[in-house]
Amino acid sequence: VSARKQATGPREIGKPVTVIGGGSWGTALADVLSGNGHSVLVWARDPDFCKQVNETRSNERYLPSLKLPPKVTFTADMARAARHSRLILLVVPSHGFRAIARSLGDHLTGEHIVVHGTKGIEQGTQKRMCEVLREETCVRRLGVLTGPNLAAEIAAGQPAGTLVASHFSEVQAAALEVLHCHRFRVYTATDVIGAEVAGAFKNIVALAAGVVDGLGLGDNTRALLLTRGLNEMARVGAAMGADIHTFGGLAGIGDLMATCSSPLSRNHQVGERLAKGETLEGIQSAMRMVAEGVKTTGAVHAFARAKGLDLPIVAAVHRVLDEGQPVAEALADLMALPPSPELAGLDW
Amino acid sequence: VSARKQATGPREIGKPVTVIGGGSWGTALADVLSGNGHSVLVWARDPDFCKQVNETRSNERYLPSLKLPPKVTFTADMARAARHSRLILLVVPSHGFRAIARSLGDHLTGEHIVVHGTKGIEQGTQKRMCEVLREETCVRRLGVLTGPNLAAEIAAGQPAGTLVASHFSEVQAAALEVLHCHRFRVYTATDVIGAEVAGAFKNIVALAAGVVDGLGLGDNTRALLLTRGLNEMARVGAAMGADIHTFGGLAGIGDLMATCSSPLSRNHQVGERLAKGETLEGIQSAMRMVAEGVKTTGAVHAFARAKGLDLPIVAAVHRVLDEGQPVAEALADLMALPPSPELAGLDW
Repeated sequence: VSARKQATGPREIGKPVTVIGGGSWGTALADVLSGNGHSVLVWARDPDFCKQVNETRSNERYLPSLKLPPKVTFTADMARAARHSRLILLVVPSHGFRAIARSLGDHLTGEHIVVHGTKGIEQGTQKRMCEVLREETCVRRLGVLTGPNLAAEIAAGQPAGTLVASHFSEVQAAALEVLHCHRFRVYTATDVIGAEVAGAFKNIVALAAGVVDGLGLGDNTRALLLTRGLNEMARVGAAMGADIHTFGGLAGIGDLMATCSSPLSRNHQVGERLAKGETLEGIQSAMRMVAEGVKTTGAVHAFARAKGLDLPIVAAVHRVLDEGQPVAEALADLMALPPSPELAGLDW
Repeated sequence: VSARKQATGPREIGKPVTVIGGGSWGTALADVLSGNGHSVLVWARDPDFCKQVNETRSNERYLPSLKLPPKVTFTADMARAARHSRLILLVVPSHGFRAIARSLGDHLTGEHIVVHGTKGIEQGTQKRMCEVLREETCVRRLGVLTGPNLAAEIAAGQPAGTLVASHFSEVQAAALEVLHCHRFRVYTATDVIGAEVAGAFKNIVALAAGVVDGLGLGDNTRALLLTRGLNEMARVGAAMGADIHTFGGLAGIGDLMATCSSPLSRNHQVGERLAKGETLEGIQSAMRMVAEGVKTTGAVHAFARAKGLDLPIVAAVHRVLDEGQPVAEALADLMALPPSPELAGLDW
């Protein structure tokens, strides 16, 4: 299939594709795949939920705005999901990732391709999701799908772009073939580490952006925060083996912009409430879950300290979250740092 | 003066600093300089206007929100302005830049340092502002000040950061010494070309972002546009001799974010009105002036064609502006492009 043909919309002959995860993102991806003519089987844990989605043709719980297209079926049978397609898109929350990867691993063969779309690192181990997949499955042809992809906007058919990173051109091509279309452009890359680090790190900056918004500050302050946050992201990424140029792309600054513009994001909300004077404990008990950015901040702060990296924004967010430093004071500390060359510490 | 001392706020002994240009940005910079303890002389063309600002202590025409601090004086006497300080900040619109640089040049010596804050390239010649300054003055110690710096937010005292780029560390140090403080962080760099190209190119993307907003599209589409716009900016910059890493910083993505978030920007307004179906002629005659992005698009499009660069967003904006292509069709064309590796064509 030539690149030009891939760009012309629905394929004449659809392929089976499996999506693991029936949340908003899995459902939106199923809609894109179905629009491209593919037959999609979506795995979700709860059989009653799957039955209800199949009958009502709507994922009321996670993406009620979308009318489910005919070629999408939900199932709670993981063996069936794994048999359905050689290509598996795995989009589940990071906290349940290892357990689901392990269950899925029981049904996968060396022929499978797994592309995950999970943003975050594993708590405790600090591992990237591709590392978890290598431990829990026999699959080696792995990839990551990431970028500025708010599910509700994808489901509404608004133009979007994403990044698929894999060391295997075959994996890039497989994801591109089924996903790329006029409403959802797929860009490709080999830098898996960069793509995964970016997806996790951005939640720290989103939290800080929530603080900036909560303090009523404007576009200059937000742009300064995001730009310097991008710089810290690139320096952490480089220390982990990423290509810093990934961070100037969809996985990095692209996702950062979309996430930080979305006041509905949990990380942004935590930041905003901290700015209003609430405590982290109070916010977390009200939310009944820990925002991804809170967990990632601790992990990145520990990594930076171990590597001797100077990451002022990460350190400031850490002080606010872990030591209860007032946000206004943390911001003042950041602004009081000595001046530096813009690209100091950035190696490429 | 150590870096740490510079960061502690107002200097004990102020320096004289000259600002050429009494618009909103010149006035906001004068406020920052004055806050740092310096005595600021601001040149503006109209003696009556200067008299009024000095008497009312307010620049009613361009920045009415700010109460002018005591150490700021406006003057229409350029010789006096040039004598006032060795360091001159030149912040005038790009269309009047050469004429003012020429007048200023009559009063400058080889001892002067000129840092300009003008975003745009010269119409007709396509020259960068530092090139114009080299032609019109004897000054060689030149620099550029650029970044996400909306004047009204700076004047309101909100935290911001900026980039000063110069080939001379002495120029970087001079600007940093008088400007850097707790509300206005100065980052330094040597890439003058990158800083100037970014400041001009961003107006093209701001125009396109206006279209996206005018079409009612969301955060995914905007993030895709800005990220791919940044990619095109970096490729043009590299072809002009810039360091692509400048574009991931304050002059590039930082300014792009702030400009594209500001619906008041003239470029954004043009895009929004194009999206509503107005013609460029109609918009321009209603605005009684040409938005910077309109002029820059033509220049960059011509440059890209001459160099054989493939810049899809620039080409699409050019088709809309110059050939009257409907914006929805231009967007559809962009989305229908063949897929590509994300970093294709980007050399570093």
